[in-house]
Amino acid sequence: MTGSYLKGRIRREDIITATVAVYAEAGYHGSSLREIARRVGITHAGLLYYFPTKEALLAAVLERRDAEDTERERLSVPPGLDALRRLVALAAHNMRHPGIVDLYARLAAEAVTVDHPAHEYFEQHYRMARGYAVESFRALAARGELRAGTDPEWAGLTFVALMDGLQVQWLSNREEVDLVGSLRFYLQNLLTVPLDQDQP
Amino acid sequence: MTGSYLKGRIRREDIITATVAVYAEAGYHGSSLREIARRVGITHAGLLYYFPTKEALLAAVLERRDAEDTERERLSVPPGLDALRRLVALAAHNMRHPGIVDLYARLAAEAVTVDHPAHEYFEQHYRMARGYAVESFRALAARGELRAGTDPEWAGLTFVALMDGLQVQWLSNREEVDLVGSLRFYLQNLLTVPLDQDQP
Repeated sequence: MTGSYLKGRIRREDIITATVAVYAEAGYHGSSLREIARRVGITHAGLLYYFPTKEALLAAVLERRDAEDTERERLSVPPGLDALRRLVALAAHNMRHPGIVDLYARLAAEAVTVDHPAHEYFEQHYRMARGYAVESFRALAARGELRAGTDPEWAGLTFVALMDGLQVQWLSNREEVDLVGSLRFYLQNLLTVPLDQDQP
Repeated sequence: MTGSYLKGRIRREDIITATVAVYAEAGYHGSSLREIARRVGITHAGLLYYFPTKEALLAAVLERRDAEDTERERLSVPPGLDALRRLVALAAHNMRHPGIVDLYARLAAEAVTVDHPAHEYFEQHYRMARGYAVESFRALAARGELRAGTDPEWAGLTFVALMDGLQVQWLSNREEVDLVGSLRFYLQNLLTVPLDQDQP
């Protein structure tokens, strides 16, 4: 088994998996590319071939998280009440994994500057999330299930911002902040039907 | 004029003022205690006497910001509709000062871990903000101005989280996110009276 053969087998995905483990132990700021390379069993230079910066690797971790979230909560369902319910289920899932919520919240705040390596990721992520939420409220409006006079655009923007803002507050004080309860309060308040009713 | 006389005149407040200027130019991460000491005209050791860590100084900046916010928007008005309007006015003010919003959002996310020097500040800040918002919604409920069935506790928690979440999204994309409009949407949705009506 030659070195180049081994090197060929080290896949991008393996590096991302090792990175998630290192983040969980040391946090993003406490991690280093050298430590991650050591875990994967490659050289520092070998790791840089796949991910030239710490931030590029972090962006890859977040992209995989998005893909897993979509798969787990089947967020590929059409926009509508069921989609919003799945977003609440996703928040409930996140509460059982505070490490990744922490990482995500921290990076989102860091990445607001346009020159941050994850800026584009978050801009696109938020745009997609807002679009999905807005379309869901539009679908509700079309079925007469959105309270009269409620603008789906505002409802969607507000819902996505609320998810993020609640995560930071919940991380700060888990006893006093009920993340899922607050999302349910917000949604129920806009609906003319019970949030938990069975879909026809 | 002796050294000790000069040293005596260097007040805590002067250091905080210089720090705000340095943050505005270089950001929190790009700043150093050495540079701040140079601006104030004291030694690094002299600065450490007042603020032993970079984070302690940051906490002082945030505390002063809170005090200024309270003064400017007269947040010492009793909880109620006018108090909520003033919080929206504060958000509008913040939109004209993105640097401090950026700093605040970033630090809030960093400070979720209990061992962070600003953790206690944010925990207390959020608790006070939630309390003020909850009391405001209670006052509205007592006047029959809160929509029937709306729990003031949930309304307050959700409002404060929304303010924070919107700031991060607005910083990410200022064209697509209307921070003040979204807060107004949220509030109007819970009220039985116009948000902008004159108070009796």
